[in-house]
Amino acid sequence: MEMPSVYLEHAVDAFAQLPGIGHKTAMRLVLHLLRQERADVLSFADALQQLVQHVHYCHVCHNITDTDTCVICANPKRDHSVVCVVEDVQDVMAIEQTQQYHGVYHVLGGVISPMDGIGPQDLQIGSLVERLQQGGINEVILALSPTMEGDTTSFYIYRKLAGIQVRITTIARGVAQNDLLHYTDEVTLGRSIVNRIEFKV
Amino acid sequence: MEMPSVYLEHAVDAFAQLPGIGHKTAMRLVLHLLRQERADVLSFADALQQLVQHVHYCHVCHNITDTDTCVICANPKRDHSVVCVVEDVQDVMAIEQTQQYHGVYHVLGGVISPMDGIGPQDLQIGSLVERLQQGGINEVILALSPTMEGDTTSFYIYRKLAGIQVRITTIARGVAQNDLLHYTDEVTLGRSIVNRIEFKV
Repeated sequence: MEMPSVYLEHAVDAFAQLPGIGHKTAMRLVLHLLRQERADVLSFADALQQLVQHVHYCHVCHNITDTDTCVICANPKRDHSVVCVVEDVQDVMAIEQTQQYHGVYHVLGGVISPMDGIGPQDLQIGSLVERLQQGGINEVILALSPTMEGDTTSFYIYRKLAGIQVRITTIARGVAQNDLLHYTDEVTLGRSIVNRIEFKV
Repeated sequence: MEMPSVYLEHAVDAFAQLPGIGHKTAMRLVLHLLRQERADVLSFADALQQLVQHVHYCHVCHNITDTDTCVICANPKRDHSVVCVVEDVQDVMAIEQTQQYHGVYHVLGGVISPMDGIGPQDLQIGSLVERLQQGGINEVILALSPTMEGDTTSFYIYRKLAGIQVRITTIARGVAQNDLLHYTDEVTLGRSIVNRIEFKV
């Protein structure tokens, strides 16, 4: 479709490169921005510039941070002997949201996915091994999504850590809160019976 | 959800202000941008800055343009005696795409919608009346969407143009190409029978 303005076209193209945003949606978003105050759009542009200029990755856990070490790694009240391995920053935020975890993290930056061309060398697995070799860590919790890619990555890390004295655990799998038993898939339900736990009140 | 970085937070907030983009989607988009080349994100920001700094509205038809007068209004090959009244810029592009129209446009910038607080004074209706009073226009095509708001706006414009010598037409309504007759709503089907046309091959 021919655009009446090259600047409009550039803005639409920029939005259309984002995942899940097609050309029509991009157009709708840009026309929305054109109806906003000029200052609001400029502050949107500014937010993007600040983002790439100031966001770092924590040199310990690879979480997103504004400083050299992230607030979690820098916090002396956290238990630095327990490391929770997650796929990305969103998972850190989701686990933090639960307020049930007081250890530290290690953000892989993805999971092994040959279909997407992501191999172990593209992830922060080497730095995890180094971190463990430095000592002081008693437990590694593998908290990856229970998908084919997540399970593959967990198994790869488990093998990589074979020579290191550390307890390796993984998050519990089972029937989710408020799920109806007869709608639960058979793999989940089967495993939740095999891996049943003591009833506690 | 607590963010590990204020810059991340600002960027997520900027995206979350866009229509149809919630907080989780905004987060996904920003994390996608963080995985891109720094130059790509900066050119995204640049596209937004250029957009608000350089995009004008044509002083004749209020279409988006980079120059004072848009390419359609400035084109001497277009029929300047026929004006097609549309809701917004996307409609101009949709009609241009058909390659069936050779007149000029008048972009209202919306339709009358009391629910959204949009009244006739918020639209380019006054400038349409002025344009017609200057003469040289034989036909006005009301090409608004066949919705409650579109019909209200068409009727309002029709009344406003009462004293002006001009042919007022509207786009044909009927069964859309490839629609199945028995799935067509009864209002559309009823009107397409009442307003039937001569069969041409």
